[in-house]
Parts: sequence; C-alpha cells; structure tokens
Amino acid sequence: MPSMLRRLLIGEPLPTQQQAQERLSNFAALAVFASDGVSSVAYATEEILLMLALAGSAGMLFSMPVAIAIATLIAIVATSYRQVVYAYPSGGGSYAVARENLGIIPGQITGAALFVDYVLTVSVSTASGIAAVTSAVPALFEHRVVLCVIAIAFVTVANLRGVRESARVFMFPTYGFMFFLYAMVVAGLYRHFTGAGPAETLPAQSDVTQVYQNASLFLVLRAFSSGCAALTGIECVSNGVQAFREPVSKNASQVLSRLALILGSLFLGITFLSRTFHVMPIHEETVVSQIARASFGHGFFYYGVQMFTAVILILGANTSFNGFPRLARVQALDGFLPRQFANLGDRLVYSNGIIALGVLSSALIVVFRGETHRLIPLYAVGVFLSFTLSQAGLVRHWFKARDEEPRWKSRAFINGLGALVTGVVVVVIAVTKFVHGAWIVVILIPMFVGVFLSIRRHYDAVAQKLSLQGIEPPTDGNNLVLVLVGSVHRGVLGAIRYARSIAKTPESVRAIHIETEANRPRAEFVTRWERYGLGLPLVVLKSPYRNLVEPLMSYIDEALEKEGFDSVTLVLPEFVVGKWYENLLHNQTALWLQVALRNRPNVVIANYRYYL
Amino acid sequence: MPSMLRRLLIGEPLPTQQQAQERLSNFAALAVFASDGVSSVAYATEEILLMLALAGSAGMLFSMPVAIAIATLIAIVATSYRQVVYAYPSGGGSYAVARENLGIIPGQITGAALFVDYVLTVSVSTASGIAAVTSAVPALFEHRVVLCVIAIAFVTVANLRGVRESARVFMFPTYGFMFFLYAMVVAGLYRHFTGAGPAETLPAQSDVTQVYQNASLFLVLRAFSSGCAALTGIECVSNGVQAFREPVSKNASQVLSRLALILGSLFLGITFLSRTFHVMPIHEETVVSQIARASFGHGFFYYGVQMFTAVILILGANTSFNGFPRLARVQALDGFLPRQFANLGDRLVYSNGIIALGVLSSALIVVFRGETHRLIPLYAVGVFLSFTLSQAGLVRHWFKARDEEPRWKSRAFINGLGALVTGVVVVVIAVTKFVHGAWIVVILIPMFVGVFLSIRRHYDAVAQKLSLQGIEPPTDGNNLVLVLVGSVHRGVLGAIRYARSIAKTPESVRAIHIETEANRPRAEFVTRWERYGLGLPLVVLKSPYRNLVEPLMSYIDEALEKEGFDSVTLVLPEFVVGKWYENLLHNQTALWLQVALRNRPNVVIANYRYYL
Repeated sequence: MPSMLRRLLIGEPLPTQQQAQERLSNFAALAVFASDGVSSVAYATEEILLMLALAGSAGMLFSMPVAIAIATLIAIVATSYRQVVYAYPSGGGSYAVARENLGIIPGQITGAALFVDYVLTVSVSTASGIAAVTSAVPALFEHRVVLCVIAIAFVTVANLRGVRESARVFMFPTYGFMFFLYAMVVAGLYRHFTGAGPAETLPAQSDVTQVYQNASLFLVLRAFSSGCAALTGIECVSNGVQAFREPVSKNASQVLSRLALILGSLFLGITFLSRTFHVMPIHEETVVSQIARASFGHGFFYYGVQMFTAVILILGANTSFNGFPRLARVQALDGFLPRQFANLGDRLVYSNGIIALGVLSSALIVVFRGETHRLIPLYAVGVFLSFTLSQAGLVRHWFKARDEEPRWKSRAFINGLGALVTGVVVVVIAVTKFVHGAWIVVILIPMFVGVFLSIRRHYDAVAQKLSLQGIEPPTDGNNLVLVLVGSVHRGVLGAIRYARSIAKTPESVRAIHIETEANRPRAEFVTRWERYGLGLPLVVLKSPYRNLVEPLMSYIDEALEKEGFDSVTLVLPEFVVGKWYENLLHNQTALWLQVALRNRPNVVIANYRYYL
Repeated sequence: MPSMLRRLLIGEPLPTQQQAQERLSNFAALAVFASDGVSSVAYATEEILLMLALAGSAGMLFSMPVAIAIATLIAIVATSYRQVVYAYPSGGGSYAVARENLGIIPGQITGAALFVDYVLTVSVSTASGIAAVTSAVPALFEHRVVLCVIAIAFVTVANLRGVRESARVFMFPTYGFMFFLYAMVVAGLYRHFTGAGPAETLPAQSDVTQVYQNASLFLVLRAFSSGCAALTGIECVSNGVQAFREPVSKNASQVLSRLALILGSLFLGITFLSRTFHVMPIHEETVVSQIARASFGHGFFYYGVQMFTAVILILGANTSFNGFPRLARVQALDGFLPRQFANLGDRLVYSNGIIALGVLSSALIVVFRGETHRLIPLYAVGVFLSFTLSQAGLVRHWFKARDEEPRWKSRAFINGLGALVTGVVVVVIAVTKFVHGAWIVVILIPMFVGVFLSIRRHYDAVAQKLSLQGIEPPTDGNNLVLVLVGSVHRGVLGAIRYARSIAKTPESVRAIHIETEANRPRAEFVTRWERYGLGLPLVVLKSPYRNLVEPLMSYIDEALEKEGFDSVTLVLPEFVVGKWYENLLHNQTALWLQVALRNRPNVVIANYRYYL
C-alpha cells in the first residue's frame, strides 16, 4: 500500500511503549464485545422459527421451550467462562486453556474450531446486518453481496487503526441498539398484557412456505441447534482479557456477566413476542423487523430498531476482529501459524490477522451469495467444540491446582457441567445439521489441524537446522571480488572503485568482460581500460552462444573449486534511469544475471547503482 | 519461458560463428521472399473487383486496364529496387537508403512506414489465407479469428528457430502454389480460347451488393489503390540482402526480377480470367476460389489451389518475419528503437523483433475481426511511402556517386521515375482511401516517428551522462560493511564471516541489531554473540515504531555523512527454504529492506544466503 494512502486509512504509526495504555474501560469493553454477543439476538429467534415453521403453526408452540433451553445454556456457558477469565488472565481464551491442559492435538482442534468460527461470525453478522437494511429498504436486496463486502472493508480498516479508536466507533451503536431493542420488547409486552394486538398487520401465514412435516423431536433439535447461534461471541471476552484495564480478570468477568444477562433477556423477550404476534419467518423481511412493526408501527422507533440492528450486526463482526488476530498471534508464537501473525503493526494491532480475517470472510460472503440461512448450519459446530474443549481443559486445570485453590471442587464441577452440556450440544448440532452444511466444518477442522501441525513441523525443522549446538565459530573467509564490465563508461567507474574497496588483497579482485560477438571492436575498450581500470586485472571470457550466464558460472565454479576462494562477490554495475519506462530501452543484464544466479551457494550479488 | 519448453519449440542454441553460414540459396530465397510478394495475387484482383463492383457490371470493364497499370508499376518498382540491392548490398533496404541519403527525419518516416507495413502484411496475409480455407470449408468461417492467431503463432515459432529451417518449411508450399496457380491460369485460358465456358456455374450477379454508382474516375482510382496491395513484398528482398549467398547483390537482384515476373504474370492472368468468367466478388467465397472452380470444376485441382493459397498466404506473413527483425535491428543500432531489438537470439535470429511482430499482428487481427477488406485500406500507404523515399534517396545517392559510377545518369533517371510514380501513387491511395481507414496510418506514421526520435534522444542523453570526457580515474573508495543480525543462529554465521572477509580494516565492519520490542530477552543473544560474533562490534539500534528501515537508514546516513565512508555494504543474511511456499512461513525482512533501500545511492545490498 503506498505510504500516503496507508497513513490516510490507518493513521500515524504508534510507538511500542504506548501499547500498555491501549486498554478499554468496562463501559467501552461491553460495547466492543457485546456487538457480537448481543447482536446475535437479531437472527437467533428467526433461525429457530425457520426450522419450526417446517411443522406449520403447530411447530411454533415449541419456540418458547427451545428459547428457554438456549437461555439456560447461555447461563451455564457464561458461568463456566467467568472461571476461564480468572484462571487465564493473560488471555488466549479457549485455545490457551485447551492447549495447556489437554495437549497439542486438542489445543489445535480448539484453534481450528475458533479459526473457522471467527471467520463465520464476520460473514454471518455482516450478512444479517445487511438483511436488516434490505428489510427496511427492499430496493437494495439485489445488491446485498456488494454491500456486505463494503461493510467488511469498513470494519477491517477501523480495526487496522487500533483498538482504542475502534471502541469509540462502536460505543454509540451498541448502546443505541440495546436501547431500541429493550424499547421494542417493553412496547411489545405492553401490547401483550393490555391485549392491544399488533400495531400493524403482519404477513399472513399463507405467505409462508407450506412444506409441513410433523413437529418431530429431530425438528425441535434442529431448531435448538439453529438457535445456538445466539451463544457465539460469549467466549470472545475470555480471549481478549488483554484488552481490559487492570484488574483485568475482575473487569472481564463483570463484562461477561452483563453481556450474558442482556443477551438472555433480549433473546427471550424477542422469542416471546414472536409468539404473541404470531410472526412467521419470510424471505424478504426479518423476524425482528416484523416484531418492531407490530410493537411500534412503521414510524421512528421502527426505523431506529432497523438502523441500529444493521449497524450493530455489521459491527458485530468487530468482535472477531478483536479476537481472531489475538488468537492467531498466540498460535503463531506457538509455531502453528505463520510467524507474520505475531507482528505488531503500525497502530499496535496484529495487522496481518485483521487483513486475513477481512479477506476470508468476504470470500465466504461471495461464495454463499450473502445469505445468512445458508451460513448458519456451518456456524455453531466450531463454537461449541471450542466451548467443550476449553471447559474440559479447565476441569483438568482445577485438578492440577487443587493445592492452591480451596474451592477447586465446586469450580471443577461447574466447568465439568459446562463441558458436558456443550459437548452434547456439539453432537446435536453436528447430527441435525450435517447434511445442511455442518459437514463442511466437520471436514475443515481436521484439515486445519493438519496444516497447523505441519507448519509447526516446518518451524521445528528450521530451528534444528539453525541450531548452534556443537558448532564452532567459523574461521576467516577468503572472498573473490568480480566486477562485470560490459563497456567502459562513467556508470562503471563507481563499481570498479567499489569492487576494489571490498577486496582484502589486490589478488582477490578482478574485472570480467564477456565477449559475445567475435568481431566486436576492442581497441577502444582496451585503451579506456588502461586509463580507468584502476589496475584491476581484466579477464575476458568468450561466449560463443551469446549467453552471459554460462561462461560466468564456469569461471566462478573454477575460482571456488581450484583457486581456494570460499565465496565470490559479483559486483554488477547498473545505471538507474529517471523514469520506470526508460528501463524498457536498456538490456536488463543485471536483472537476468541475478535471476540466473539466485540459487547459487557462496555467490553474493552486489548491485552497484549509478544514478543518471 | 521455461528452459525445456524453449528448447522444444526453438531448438538448441547455435554458436555465433555459425552465423555466416546461415544463408539461403537463390532457389530457397525465392521461396521465402516470394511467399509474400507472389501470394498477394490471391487477394489483389478481388480488392480491385470489390471497388469496381460498386458500379455494377459496367465497372468490371475497367478491371484489365487497372491491372495493366499495376503490372507496369510492378515493373517500375522492381527495376528501381534492383538498383537498391547493388547500391546497398549490406541490406537495410528502403530504410538504410533513405536515412543515409535524405537525413534523419525522412529516414525515420521510412522506418515508421515499413514498421506499420510489416505488421499489416502479417495480418492481411494471414487473414486472406484463412479466407481461402473458409471458402473451401464454410463451417470454419465463424472461427476465423482464432485460426488466424494460431497461424501467426506457428509462423512466429518457425522463425524463432532460425532462417535456414524456415526456408525449408516454405519451399514446398511456395513452389506448389506457383504450380497450381499457373495450372489454373493455363486451364482457364484454354477454356477462354476454345470458348468452352466455365466448368461450373458461378454465383449470379444478383447475389452481389446492388449499390451501383457511376464508374467515376475516383472509383477507378480507388480500385487501383486497392490493387496496389499486389506490390507489397517486393522491397523485402532489398531489406534482406544479408540472407543471400555471395555474391549477395547479384543473387538478390536475380531473385527480385524473377519474383516480379511471376507476380506480374499471375496477377494479369487471374484478372483476365475474372473477366472471362464474369466473376463477381462475394462475401463467403474468394475470387480465386471462383476462378478455380470455373477453370477446373470442384475436383482435385480446385482443392490444390485452395490449399496452397491458404498455406502460401499464411506463410506470406513469413517475409515480414524475415524483414521486420532486420529492420528493427538496424533501427535499434541507430538508436531509434530499444536496444533489445539488436540482440541475437539462441538461434542466430533477432528474437525480440520476431516476437514483437507476432504479438502486434495478432492484436490487429483480433481488433479487425480477421477481415481482409477492413485491413486493406490501411495497407498500401506505408509501402508506397517507403518506396518513394528510398527511390528519392537513391537519386541523391547516384548524384553523390557520379564520379565512381559512369552510368549514374541513367540510374538516377530510373530511380527518379520510380520515386515520381510511387509518390503519385501514395497521394492517390491516401486520398481515395482516407475515410476507409488510411487516416489511421496517416496518424500512426508521424506518431511512430515521434517515438523513434524520443528514444534516440534518451540514448543520446544517457550516452552523454556516461561519457568519460574530462573524467579522472577515481581514487580509492572507503567502504563500511554492516551485517544485519536479528538473532544468532547457524544461518547468520556465514554472513558474519563473509562481512569480515569483504572489510578492508577491522574498523570498517560492524554488526547491526535492531531492537523492536523494549522487553525482548537479550541475555541469550549477548552470550551467543560473544562466542560466535567473530569479534565484530555490535551496534544495537532501538526501533520504537517497530520499523526496521528507518533506524537503519539514519545509521547509514550518519556513517556516510559524518564518519567519512563513501559507500556502505549491507550484508543481509537470508536462509533459503526447500519449497517456495515455505517462504510464506518466514518474515521476508531481507526482501522488505531491499525494496526500501533500492533507491539509496552509495548503499550496496549483498544477500548472503544460507541453504537449509
């Protein structure tokens, strides 16, 4: 990226010492982390209803029981994760816990599950955010893929600017969203208890797809699986403990509890209202949009709900932009991801992780044409798999820490329960949604684990090859300097002088002239060389096939093998023209030689540039 | 191009000393040069008839007078060019003559005219060759553009293999074409004189476009202009005198005369038969195809004519592949084209010119959808412009040579007549075809001249800047060697040793360590450095913004400005991994530094590679 554009988009670089100050207050942290966790209420109810609708209006009777089950799950998972935050205040969340307590493979499975899920969170949140927009403004429906990609690009740039500034971006929308959604729930409940009925007529049931089947247990479990999307985002807090102010654990766990409370209450409220107003899921309008119309009518508050839902969902992607780069950094430091993910960017964020997430999630949106319902089946497997493994890890952790932690038994019990419940959910989700897309994730996760392990193997092999174990410091080297001279002009004088200045002895520097045409006039060359050659011996190599590389290679080989030099420095004079296209007018000899010799051990190429 | 593929397509490289032997016998040379000159009879008559047909069958009465005028022109031009071959046995043809006798601008106008024309020759010949194929096999009509591009690719590769082998490729088709066309003319004349009538019924006149207008003088002149396409290719012999055996001038002029004779007789014969059989030009079938059917019927000889016409026309492009690279070389040696055009390729041909011609003519075919009739109006302006300028140059030449050449007056008269006649033709063509496409060439030629002149200006400026005029040999340089050390491992030991071996004194070599994170553990680094650092002073640069380039740049600047070094060699240790994709797993520090420092005067980067 050209420097100007980069500064404009991302801002001036920050010094490393400012890093510690880039922490969030709890109020700001709730905004950042809740944008994912809470925003899922915008689609979780709809996903449940979509499944239950397959059994017609009879199926709808199951919506509240399913929602209550999911709310209970939220409580269990949040309680479990409060313990993660205390046990691992350094952050790293599920991955760190699983890796430390369960070993490499479960750790990497957790890493892979989280990897998949972060990418999906961005795609799903953005796609539903855009769905909220297109519910309110139907004309935009056909442009949804482009809108999604633009939204992701916006969030990516906000994050490349750094954590403090992004919190500022997200505070107003998150709290605005909470305000409008609670307002909607309260207004709706008021209508319910006063028996006032919906403020507007909703689409009739006849508009709904009529593929009725029995409300079987399997269908209810599928509805439950779909609704589990509501839980995504909860673990992000434990992953990002580093972003909190001191005392980090206390602050993080407080935010986690609030988040769970808001999430659970809004989710139950919305599901309850969907029953009250007999909302059915349809293709063109979201369930929340229908409830908002029923509660408020088509006025200011309706548009407030839609607008803030859209914004919060798009920004919901932001949680992943906080979590993913940090996870990638930890995995990179462990050697399971490319080292570049641990590089701190200009603005003290892990830029490569942010960019990778933006690119991958945009690609997913394009492949799935920006349709939330097609992405949801891929979604929750990874989340719950990482829940299960980290809770299991924590159980082990408490057993190991039983001497320091007096309440280890009750703690182990809580996490054990969490692991058990989420483990059952993983199986339920994988089975009920396997054919609808979960199979992709079931294949992807082991593939990722394989890649992670082979990256680690590569790093281990390199480290071993670079090890100094048993290696003696080297003795002095004996280098031969060769300077390539095509013709004698001002552009090569500097190179000749330079070649002399890096030669230890007068015997270890020579000029090479490659003669490509038998009848080239040489008298002038020799005269000039005598005057300007600074006394360097001139070696003329014949090239019957007009090729520069081969005679030079043979000469170098001989110097290394027979003359006892252990390295050769080839000084290539180059002149640099003013405009790039002027290069088209000159033979790029230096470039070709460089390419040809790039895999030659003990040959060092030194380009000496002369600026015209 | 990967080496294997290159060898397969082009063959083994040839040594430079074989160059003199790569000459053609007259028999072979006629085949090569005639493929363009003679092949134009396949479309020249048709282009005349296409114009005359605008005046209906009355217009056809003018076809023989126009053809006779063109045949006379052929005789005049060929006679003129025989003198070029003697006056300039070194080749270069029209361009060399104009440049030497008329000065830079006329010389470059000739060069530009020839440039445009060589490209057009390839496009037109190929397009009409494919038209002969699609006349015989109508199903291929819609694929003509692809077929043209494939044909050009074939000819390009044949030429990259070298002149001797290409002559072999062209001999059989050229002589085969002559045989079948003479057979057709003889058979047709037999039918004419015996009054036998056509062997097959030809398309009725009602099939022809009915946009009659009067057979005005302008229309006849347009027909003449179109027919002048027959003359293209004549000058190629004078351009390629180098390809003949000794005595080159005598051989070349002999071949030129034969070529003119064959061209003129076939052209007159075909035009005469078109009158005899009342042939009208139609879109789907060529005129020659119709005459062949009328002369032979739809049998073996008909297919012989079509097949050889197709092949000869496609190979007719070959003349340009002989002429253009040689012209480009001469212009490149004069400094008006990029120097690369003067490079002799693996097979002793000027490969860059060959490739450029193949690419440009393919592009033209694609732009004009492979339709001969749309390319023809662009065609002859350039040819005749170069005729005129070279003949005018030759007049001047004879005046200058009047002391050595006793017959200078008659020679000057012949060339003067040639210049006058072809000059008139240029004006006629430019005027009558201006709106139909000649305007493109009228714009292109001055543009090309402008480009040629600015290329020359660039080379002149470079040469002046590189001149040694008044420059003293430099005194000794004082170089500082810096070796960048990130961490101490086996991969950097070689680089440290190398850095020492290119330093003149112990004071002029240092190791640089850039500290990007304030709290990086340093104890291990120092211990290792003490053991493996070979006594090099270690300079630690702090980088608060985690940027490697800026601290390094400042340090280098200071060394150059304050410490009195006049160059800095930066040794960058790099380790080379086994597979290219493994590079993705390592920070490409060396690469980034190289990019950042590439425009830094007096800094030489030496990559020291360690192979894992």
